[in-house]
Amino acid sequence: MSTPSDFARPHVPDLHAYTPGTQPTDGSWIKLNTNECPYPPSPHVAAAIAREVGAEGSSLRLYPSPTSAPLRTQIAKLHGLTPAQVIVGNGSDDILNLLVRVFGGPTAPAGFTLPSYSLYPVLVAIQDGATAVIEFDRSMRLPVDRIAASGAKAFFLTSPNAPTGVGFSNAEISRVLNAFDGILVVDEAYAPFAEEDAIPLLAAHRNLVIVRTLSKAHALAGMRVGYALADPETIGLLDRVRDSYNVNRLSQVAAAAALADTPYYDAIIGKIKRTRDNWATEWAERDWFVYRSSANFLFVEPRNAAGEAGADVAAALFAWFKSRKILVRAFPSHALTASFLRISVGTDDEMLAVEEAIQAWLTNAP
Amino acid sequence: MSTPSDFARPHVPDLHAYTPGTQPTDGSWIKLNTNECPYPPSPHVAAAIAREVGAEGSSLRLYPSPTSAPLRTQIAKLHGLTPAQVIVGNGSDDILNLLVRVFGGPTAPAGFTLPSYSLYPVLVAIQDGATAVIEFDRSMRLPVDRIAASGAKAFFLTSPNAPTGVGFSNAEISRVLNAFDGILVVDEAYAPFAEEDAIPLLAAHRNLVIVRTLSKAHALAGMRVGYALADPETIGLLDRVRDSYNVNRLSQVAAAAALADTPYYDAIIGKIKRTRDNWATEWAERDWFVYRSSANFLFVEPRNAAGEAGADVAAALFAWFKSRKILVRAFPSHALTASFLRISVGTDDEMLAVEEAIQAWLTNAP
Repeated sequence: MSTPSDFARPHVPDLHAYTPGTQPTDGSWIKLNTNECPYPPSPHVAAAIAREVGAEGSSLRLYPSPTSAPLRTQIAKLHGLTPAQVIVGNGSDDILNLLVRVFGGPTAPAGFTLPSYSLYPVLVAIQDGATAVIEFDRSMRLPVDRIAASGAKAFFLTSPNAPTGVGFSNAEISRVLNAFDGILVVDEAYAPFAEEDAIPLLAAHRNLVIVRTLSKAHALAGMRVGYALADPETIGLLDRVRDSYNVNRLSQVAAAAALADTPYYDAIIGKIKRTRDNWATEWAERDWFVYRSSANFLFVEPRNAAGEAGADVAAALFAWFKSRKILVRAFPSHALTASFLRISVGTDDEMLAVEEAIQAWLTNAP
Repeated sequence: MSTPSDFARPHVPDLHAYTPGTQPTDGSWIKLNTNECPYPPSPHVAAAIAREVGAEGSSLRLYPSPTSAPLRTQIAKLHGLTPAQVIVGNGSDDILNLLVRVFGGPTAPAGFTLPSYSLYPVLVAIQDGATAVIEFDRSMRLPVDRIAASGAKAFFLTSPNAPTGVGFSNAEISRVLNAFDGILVVDEAYAPFAEEDAIPLLAAHRNLVIVRTLSKAHALAGMRVGYALADPETIGLLDRVRDSYNVNRLSQVAAAAALADTPYYDAIIGKIKRTRDNWATEWAERDWFVYRSSANFLFVEPRNAAGEAGADVAAALFAWFKSRKILVRAFPSHALTASFLRISVGTDDEMLAVEEAIQAWLTNAP
């Protein structure tokens, strides 16, 4: 007797789904584990949703714009591009998946660095695709030559990097673009928190794709909106494999309202950066190693009361945090990351609670 | 100099994206071309969205439940199943895409009938997959033996069929399930308008997958929610290839509110069926061939004033409708469908406007 797996493509039953960060359903946690924005979205977002829903929700019975047309035009204008250089996705994960489907396959390696966003290998595995993995060393210097020689058709570069927060300059990214014969996907989920973004490089490089999300700086993780900026030919390829109604009505209007409110986001992004830099300094002064972050999180290597660092120490602090209802993220599976914790930058109160937990740990932990 | 297409998988540049029905942005059209519900969703939907958004939209900064957990449980309960038998998608198109990715590939044909939902071949082509196409004849009798012998790993059966509206009985579907050695996907987008659905067959058939949408009967096309009901092993396979945050927060709460309001939907579904059956009778009495519909649309073969039917006649009426700002759907690419128009069942006023347009066409058209 056959079971459903007998009819599946052979690689599928062995896949491991991506493990998203814990999303607790009660509000009693200090949630610093998935790099969400600690502040609400622009007040224009709630207003735009209320306007679209109206009293009866009548417009919800109608399909959304298949191409997210008004939003696409707005995004193009925002970045000084044309709508043909923009595609909107159901979160940037949707866009990353489309990129893997267009450029990756069993004989077309998709490249990425280690560490970086751990979704890439999951998406490539679903596609039964080959990979080209380039490992960072602890310096987190961009291995330009190894990326250029990777043999990848498309290479995914998270910049600023996750989970370290290290940003790469346009000078470095240009070197990759010039040396690499393939599509370079610069995943700029955290770029609003950085000093520089790669958008100016689009004009000179047809092989560049920039991926953005509204889940981080724009405080809309719950609405699932991301987009890519690229050469019109690349956008055309992605559109061929995109679901025809991938972004719902309310996500389209929420994103439009958010992207129109630059002053609001300039203010909260500024606030998050100040909080981030304060705590980076604070913890570095405690002699903890902290990567210089260009993102909305800090990647820190804690030391216990005895001054020891390492995977066990990070795991101990992770558990300590958890026992006090503070969620952060640990990356135990790789030597370069196992001794670190990634702490999303929260509100000042949340960060004070983190600091108090650390002090209690240093004083009281067995 | 390389262009982006040079790095794409070879089949991608030749793909043709699915062509969704026209979605006009001004409200002056009578829109009967994409089988949306002519009535608004349950009033509980707007209320649930307003509750989730709150005054500030604060919850939108947080990721949604990755598995749509509360909604999944509610859907299971609604159908007398367990949550492990349910998966929720960003529209049922998301679910159909997952099914093609799990079961289809170059050496694993995906099967479907012609005519049926024209998205299936698009999804298979994206996957560079093989197809097994089984053609209906005009009787629209289910070709059980040919489906069984199709060699497909997964066979997609739209029931009630689109675009004809013809429903298949559980007795017929059981015959397929017993004879076919593969996954049978019964795409029940229109089942709420039918006499019967295939859910009772799940208990005895591990190879059955039922796909549902909230875009039609539940008046939520703009929110993109669909789901599948299947054996837990099949759900597990789909979950491995699913995007981890595929359904946003507001779509999850909107769907939950809709599915909880059975009395409201019983009433509007009853109303749509009465309107449908009235006009089916009316047009059949004019000697137009109309398939007996179990869906929320009518597939009609118009005759002109001279009593002629055919592709040209259908095209002429389509254009006439359009000139009067009435949108319906034509399917000119197949001999079995080219002489027909598919008209979504609208409100009574909308259907009267359609009838007036027909009468004017019969009187005045050149």
